[in-house]
Amino acid sequence: MTLLTDPAAPTACPSDAAPAPDFGNATGLVCRECGAHYPLGAAYACVECFGPLEVSYDLSGVTREQIEAGPASLWRYAPLLPVAAYAGTEPNLQPGMTKLVRADNLGAALGMTAPLWIKDDSGNPTHSFKDRVVAVAQSAARRLGLTTLACASTGNLANAVAAAAARAGMGSVVVIPSDLEAGKTVTTATYDGTLLAVKGNYDDVNRLCSELIGDPVTETWGFVNVNLRPYYAEGSKTLGYEVAEQLGWRTPQQVVIPVASGSLLTKVDKAWRELTGLGIIAESPYRVFGAQADGCSPVARAFADGLDVIRPVKPDTIAKSLAIGNPADGPYALDAVRRTGGAVASVSDADIVAAIRLLARSEGIFAETAGGVTLATFQRLLATGQASRDAETVLLNTGDGLKTIDAVSGVVGPTAVIDPRVDQVHEVLAPR
Amino acid sequence: MTLLTDPAAPTACPSDAAPAPDFGNATGLVCRECGAHYPLGAAYACVECFGPLEVSYDLSGVTREQIEAGPASLWRYAPLLPVAAYAGTEPNLQPGMTKLVRADNLGAALGMTAPLWIKDDSGNPTHSFKDRVVAVAQSAARRLGLTTLACASTGNLANAVAAAAARAGMGSVVVIPSDLEAGKTVTTATYDGTLLAVKGNYDDVNRLCSELIGDPVTETWGFVNVNLRPYYAEGSKTLGYEVAEQLGWRTPQQVVIPVASGSLLTKVDKAWRELTGLGIIAESPYRVFGAQADGCSPVARAFADGLDVIRPVKPDTIAKSLAIGNPADGPYALDAVRRTGGAVASVSDADIVAAIRLLARSEGIFAETAGGVTLATFQRLLATGQASRDAETVLLNTGDGLKTIDAVSGVVGPTAVIDPRVDQVHEVLAPR
Repeated sequence: MTLLTDPAAPTACPSDAAPAPDFGNATGLVCRECGAHYPLGAAYACVECFGPLEVSYDLSGVTREQIEAGPASLWRYAPLLPVAAYAGTEPNLQPGMTKLVRADNLGAALGMTAPLWIKDDSGNPTHSFKDRVVAVAQSAARRLGLTTLACASTGNLANAVAAAAARAGMGSVVVIPSDLEAGKTVTTATYDGTLLAVKGNYDDVNRLCSELIGDPVTETWGFVNVNLRPYYAEGSKTLGYEVAEQLGWRTPQQVVIPVASGSLLTKVDKAWRELTGLGIIAESPYRVFGAQADGCSPVARAFADGLDVIRPVKPDTIAKSLAIGNPADGPYALDAVRRTGGAVASVSDADIVAAIRLLARSEGIFAETAGGVTLATFQRLLATGQASRDAETVLLNTGDGLKTIDAVSGVVGPTAVIDPRVDQVHEVLAPR
Repeated sequence: MTLLTDPAAPTACPSDAAPAPDFGNATGLVCRECGAHYPLGAAYACVECFGPLEVSYDLSGVTREQIEAGPASLWRYAPLLPVAAYAGTEPNLQPGMTKLVRADNLGAALGMTAPLWIKDDSGNPTHSFKDRVVAVAQSAARRLGLTTLACASTGNLANAVAAAAARAGMGSVVVIPSDLEAGKTVTTATYDGTLLAVKGNYDDVNRLCSELIGDPVTETWGFVNVNLRPYYAEGSKTLGYEVAEQLGWRTPQQVVIPVASGSLLTKVDKAWRELTGLGIIAESPYRVFGAQADGCSPVARAFADGLDVIRPVKPDTIAKSLAIGNPADGPYALDAVRRTGGAVASVSDADIVAAIRLLARSEGIFAETAGGVTLATFQRLLATGQASRDAETVLLNTGDGLKTIDAVSGVVGPTAVIDPRVDQVHEVLAPR
C-alpha cells in the first residue's frame, strides 16, 4: 500500500495558508487495527501497521429533528458524515432517499409471516448505491483541493464517478478492464471524462491505480475508492440511516446485504450502532446477513469454516459487481455478522437468475445480478433455518437490471410470437 | 374506433349493485370536440362525433396546503387527478417527484443568461415518465373492476405496465412488434406477464389491440392507452404540477416537451392552467415548445406550414419512443403551442446523438433518445431565435439512456486502450 500522509504531517490542503478543510463533525482518521490517529486528509492506510483508516467523529448533539429538517437526499445525514454542512448545496447528483418497498407479494412467495421490505437503490441517479459513496468522496475531494475524480471499476462505480464529475464540472479518470461489456463502457464514455481501458483484468487495473497514486500526473486526482476510501466508504452508512428512518426510526430484525469488498455490510451495521448510540433509535437486536455468489464467495467460505481470515479466490460468476476475490473489508464483515448472530451464504448463478425473475414478477423490481444474489441468498438462509420467516427483514437491492441484462437474455422472452390476428391471441390465452 | 359505453349507459362497475366507483374530484368524461358528457367508465371516444374523451372535474377547494401535505410521489396531486384519495395507498410503483436539476453547466454551454432546468423523469421506477400515466390508469382499472393491465407499446410503456401490474398482483398483457430490440423485450419479459410479440409493425400492434377491445377474452382487461386513455393521459399532468411546485409554485417562462402523440405537451399546459385557475400559482406567461425528430415530425411540419391538420408520416428515426406517425393529440398540441407563443421544431438523428452527449458531459444525465430530441430542438429554437436565451427554461427528459444505448454505441468509447503501465497513462494524458 502507498501511504500519502504521515501521522505527524498536517492535513493535505490546497495551500499551507488555507484554513483547515471543513469536514463537519468528523474529527480525524483512525486506524481500524491499531487505533493510531491521523488528521483528515487523502490518507487511507496506517503508517504504523498498514491497517485501513476510518473516519472518527464527534456526533454529540446530532438529533432526529436535525436530520428530519434536512433535504430529501442523503445530505439530510450530513451531520453524521465527513462533510461540511453545506456539502449538499454544491453541485452533485443528489443521491439517496430511495424507496423502501413493502414486498408483500414476495413475502407471501417466501412464506414470510413477518413484513419483508426491499430497499431499492436502483432509484439512485445512475441506478446503483455507488452514487452514495461517490457523493461523499466528491465532497472530500473538494475540501482537499482535488479537481479530478478517479477510480478503478468494472461498471457501477465507473458510471457514478463519470456522472458525478460531469455534474460538478470536475474532471474524471475512470480505469476499466478493456474486455468490459460494451454497455457499461458506452454509458461511462457518454459522460465524456477520460476513460482508460486497460489490457488486463481487474487486478491489473487496481495495481495500475495504486501505482498512479503519488505520481505527479495524479496530483490533483482523488481516487474515490483508494486514497479517498475512508470518506467514500462512509457514504454507505446512508443506506442504513435511510432504512431506519423509513421504518419510522427503528431497525428491522434481519437485513441481507450483498458482499463485494464487504464495506457496505459493515457500514450499514455501523449506521445502526451510531443511531442507537445517539439515542435516535431504541436499541433492538438485529441480525446482519451477507450474500455472495458461489463463483466468488471467499467471505461465505470463511464464515462456514469458522475462520477469521479470508482466503482470496479467482472470481467466476455472472454477478460481476460482486466479483472481488480478495475483499478488503471481509474480516470486518465477518465480525459484524458473527456479533449480530447472522450468517454469510452463497448461491449459484442459476439461483441468481431465478431470484431476479422472482423479484421482478412479484414486486415489479428489475434488479441487477447483485440484487438476485441477495434475494437468492435469503431464500437459502430461510431454507437452512439460518434466517427466520417470522422476523421483519430488509433486503438491499443495490443496482439495476438494465445494466446486467445479459443475465436474463436467453432465459426470458415473449410468451408467444403471433400474427396480428385476434384468433391467435385466443389461442395463446386458452387454458391448457 | 370502438365505443365501449353509450352516453345513457351507467358507468361500468364490477356489479350493478356496487356503489359508483370513487374517482375523487373527477365528475365525468367530456368530448373534447363537441362537449358531450359521459359518466366515468372505460370509454374513450364520443358516440356523437368520435372525438376523444377527457376527464372533467370539480376542483373547487383544492389548495396548495392540501398538496404539500401529501406523500413524496405523484399521489400528492391526487385531488387533481381522476383517482380516489386513497389511490396512493394501494400497491403501485409510487412514481413521481423526480428531480428538477438546475443545469448551470448546460446553460453556460448554450449561452443562457436565464436559469435552465432539466426535469429528469428517468428517476421514475422503470426510468421513464410512463410510470406516471400507468399509475393513474392502474387506479382507474381497479375502480372499474378490471384486473389485467394491457397496452400496445414499443418499449417504455411495456416496461411500465408489466412492472406496475407485477407490483399490484394484477395480470398484464403487453403487445409489441416482434422486431423490437432484445433489451426492451427482455426487460418486459422479466416481469413475467403475458408478452405477445406480433409479426408486424407498431401499426399492426395497435390495430390488433383495437380489435381486441370488446372481445370477451379482454373483458377484465384495461388497455391503459386505449380504453383507459382518458385516465392514463391525466397522469401526464403530474409532470407539470411537479415542475411548478419544485420551482416554488410558479411556471418557467419556457418549457420544451418531446412530442410523440402530443398528449404530454397538452397535459403539462393543462396542469399549469389548472393551477393558475385555482389560484395555487400566479398567472404568468409561459411559452410551450414541442420537440420532434426529423424522421417523425408531422407536428413540426404542420406548425411550420401553419396548418391545423396533421399529415401522417411513416417514422424513420432513432428516437423510437417518439415514432408515432399519426399523433392523436397533435392538433391539441399545436393549439397549446400557438396559444402560448411557442413553436414546434425537429432535429436530425445526428443532432439527437450530439445532444445526448452534451447533456451527459455537462450535467451527468444520460438521457434516452427522446431527451436528446428535446435538448437538440431547444438548441435549434435558440439558433433560429424562436426561443430565448434570457427566459427561464425547463427541458423535460422523459426517459433513460440505458434503454437506448445503441444510439451512442459506436459513437463514444474509451479515450485510449493501454497496457497496465504508468508510462502509457502519461502518454495518454500528455498535452497535445
